Amino acid sequence: MNGKEVCELLEKKQYRILKESFADMNEVDLAELLGELPEKQMIMAFRLTGKEEGAEIFSHMEPREQQILVEAMTERELKEVLDEMFLDDTADLLEEMPANVVERILSNTDADTRRQLNQLLSYPEDSAGSIMTVEYVDLKPQMTVKDALEKIRRVGIDSETIYTCYVIRNKKLLGIVTAKDLLISDERKTIEEIMETNIIKVQTHDDQETVANMIRKYGLLALPVVDREGCMVGIVTVDDAMEVMEDETTEDMTLMAAMQPSEDSYFGTSVLRHARNRIPWLLVLMLSATFTGMIITKYERAFEAIPILVSFIPMLMDTSGNCGSQSSTLIIRGMAVDEIHLRDVLKVVWKEIRVAAVVSCTLAAVNGLRILIMYGDAKLAVLIGLTLVCTVTLAELIGCSLPMLAKKCRMDPAIMAAPLITTCVDAAAILIYFAIATHLFSL
Amino acid sequence: MNGKEVCELLEKKQYRILKESFADMNEVDLAELLGELPEKQMIMAFRLTGKEEGAEIFSHMEPREQQILVEAMTERELKEVLDEMFLDDTADLLEEMPANVVERILSNTDADTRRQLNQLLSYPEDSAGSIMTVEYVDLKPQMTVKDALEKIRRVGIDSETIYTCYVIRNKKLLGIVTAKDLLISDERKTIEEIMETNIIKVQTHDDQETVANMIRKYGLLALPVVDREGCMVGIVTVDDAMEVMEDETTEDMTLMAAMQPSEDSYFGTSVLRHARNRIPWLLVLMLSATFTGMIITKYERAFEAIPILVSFIPMLMDTSGNCGSQSSTLIIRGMAVDEIHLRDVLKVVWKEIRVAAVVSCTLAAVNGLRILIMYGDAKLAVLIGLTLVCTVTLAELIGCSLPMLAKKCRMDPAIMAAPLITTCVDAAAILIYFAIATHLFSL
Repeated sequence: MNGKEVCELLEKKQYRILKESFADMNEVDLAELLGELPEKQMIMAFRLTGKEEGAEIFSHMEPREQQILVEAMTERELKEVLDEMFLDDTADLLEEMPANVVERILSNTDADTRRQLNQLLSYPEDSAGSIMTVEYVDLKPQMTVKDALEKIRRVGIDSETIYTCYVIRNKKLLGIVTAKDLLISDERKTIEEIMETNIIKVQTHDDQETVANMIRKYGLLALPVVDREGCMVGIVTVDDAMEVMEDETTEDMTLMAAMQPSEDSYFGTSVLRHARNRIPWLLVLMLSATFTGMIITKYERAFEAIPILVSFIPMLMDTSGNCGSQSSTLIIRGMAVDEIHLRDVLKVVWKEIRVAAVVSCTLAAVNGLRILIMYGDAKLAVLIGLTLVCTVTLAELIGCSLPMLAKKCRMDPAIMAAPLITTCVDAAAILIYFAIATHLFSL
Repeated sequence: MNGKEVCELLEKKQYRILKESFADMNEVDLAELLGELPEKQMIMAFRLTGKEEGAEIFSHMEPREQQILVEAMTERELKEVLDEMFLDDTADLLEEMPANVVERILSNTDADTRRQLNQLLSYPEDSAGSIMTVEYVDLKPQMTVKDALEKIRRVGIDSETIYTCYVIRNKKLLGIVTAKDLLISDERKTIEEIMETNIIKVQTHDDQETVANMIRKYGLLALPVVDREGCMVGIVTVDDAMEVMEDETTEDMTLMAAMQPSEDSYFGTSVLRHARNRIPWLLVLMLSATFTGMIITKYERAFEAIPILVSFIPMLMDTSGNCGSQSSTLIIRGMAVDEIHLRDVLKVVWKEIRVAAVVSCTLAAVNGLRILIMYGDAKLAVLIGLTLVCTVTLAELIGCSLPMLAKKCRMDPAIMAAPLITTCVDAAAILIYFAIATHLFSL
């Protein structure tokens, strides 16, 4: 079924057919489908979804669509949706809605939920606390396996996951029991006997990227979050970790291409917003590049004497920029997946120096030979070869060290990527090139 | 505990202490720790791990380390490890080992396992079939919930996940039952009554990136894989999907920086291998950039007449390169996360044209004004402004269309990123620049 068909069926008041097809569809697909409809039809179609599915569909919709729906809902409808939603999704919703909608949502939740929501909203953006959910299964150490299974049966429907249960005494996390452990253990055993006490956990203020990396590294379905006193406050589930991984990657790539990251999708971002995300860095880089131009002006007489010198500028700029961007990409990515740490800085520099030696000599040899064959000018070949060796080595050193420096200064290393590094390296390449040229040709 | 402490304890033959600390550690951490030890100590330490943990630790080690261990193991030890390993991990192992080790591994598995391994290894690289596992819980539709729970108790220990069970009749996948459904349903109900028949699944030949995107999009713990006849052949679990996401991102970023992707980590890759991954594209781009140089040579007389023209070359090259790389990054990423499709090509082009209009006019205005103030030359300001408008627009169009063209030709769009686009755009920028200059200044 596509958006047009839904509109037609709504037009013809074929509500029963729609209801039945909706019931057969996955909630994620339904959210996408409803998002394609015009406002009025979206509201009508949403009312045809089941009560439980409604909340899930709502959770998967875009903020703009959620706002339209909230504004169209009666108080009772809103309360029904909110009751079925998980708290972390409600917290996400509150962050996106304008003040009047937030007020209406809060007035439709009970005091206890409001307190929990406020707590969730108080954690810094992109921290473990801000992405966790507080709905998990908690067990007591003295419970038997049978008790635990009964508890899951009772509360399971309201928990994000029942597959990892948390053993808690006085708010402290003592151990973890998986549903698998419960299913394959003797029913009379106590939780204390079967629980795993060697627990992997994070703190509320840990970065969401760290959380996602841990879930991936250890292959977990959920990761417990504790506060500074070691009290259990929530869990992050693997599906949220996957979303974090995707968002962080998109953010890194966007930054690496010198853009402000956008919260929305490509098509969901307006033309003006796209332009606003792209212009600031372009301006900074454009004005910085004029410095490279000024350096060239300084050597005006050199290329007046030997005009061919100018024709090598693009090649030198591009090659050194590419080399710098290769190194910086590897380091930025290595740090993002927790493979390269700040303490490795010397190891990285030493590795890049050796790689640069091989790369720069190869490029110098190939290009030197080309020039020798094409122009038959040995001096020119030496000039280009020597310049390549120097600029490529410098570019790889700048490329590997700037991202680590950024990390050291608690900035996002992804900023120190191709565009910025190219601009730095360009100026250096031109300086080195003309310095060697004036020397070799005694200009 | 770190590598040095382990070596010391081994030296002192404190095996009991080591065994106890190993038993308390997570298998992933242990694999990392053992990987840091010298060969001999690694083999000794590995023998101190428990039988079940041993296989898991082994699965998490690097291929180089796995080879050392396999070569040191007796036939009995090897068989024990292989018996405990999941088949998808064994298949991965076989892909990495040299022929003689592969032979030894295969001779220690039974005929049935060998047949399954051969099947797994026959799927194309990076396909759903190549990352799936064949160890899952299958149920029959007429079973009761109680029967199903008993089956899980019996076979659960050997399955990758017990949380999603697959209902199968005549090899065909009829439905899905989660462990949660089983736990909260009446024990006397049949599987047929509670199973979900609206199944999200993939085919063996689907790309692994598609698989990971589906698991993320629908928040699944496992995704069933069927063959061309619709028969169930395996499942992909969420932990493997996370690894795929990470590998695919690293591969994309590496390609986008004009490097051959490496299978190993940054430090795990040798200097020569690093150089070999980086040189080919650098050479291609370097030689292509000489064309831009040749174009400049053609306009030798223009910059002999007005030498200041040369000083704007770096700024024009950098700016158009950056604009092209911004567009291409957004499109490459959008296609990777399944937000932008080939059918959207006109929508993309239209969006980029409008963004380019805003961006190019802003840059042209700022730079034109700067030149007017610094040089007081209106003609020069118009030249640079006009060139920026043309090159930026062209760069964004090239940037957004080349990745889509690559996808259309079934190539990886990530190749059409900053370095290649910069080189294309550079030549165009210089051509446009001198064309406008000769016209304006009637050179």
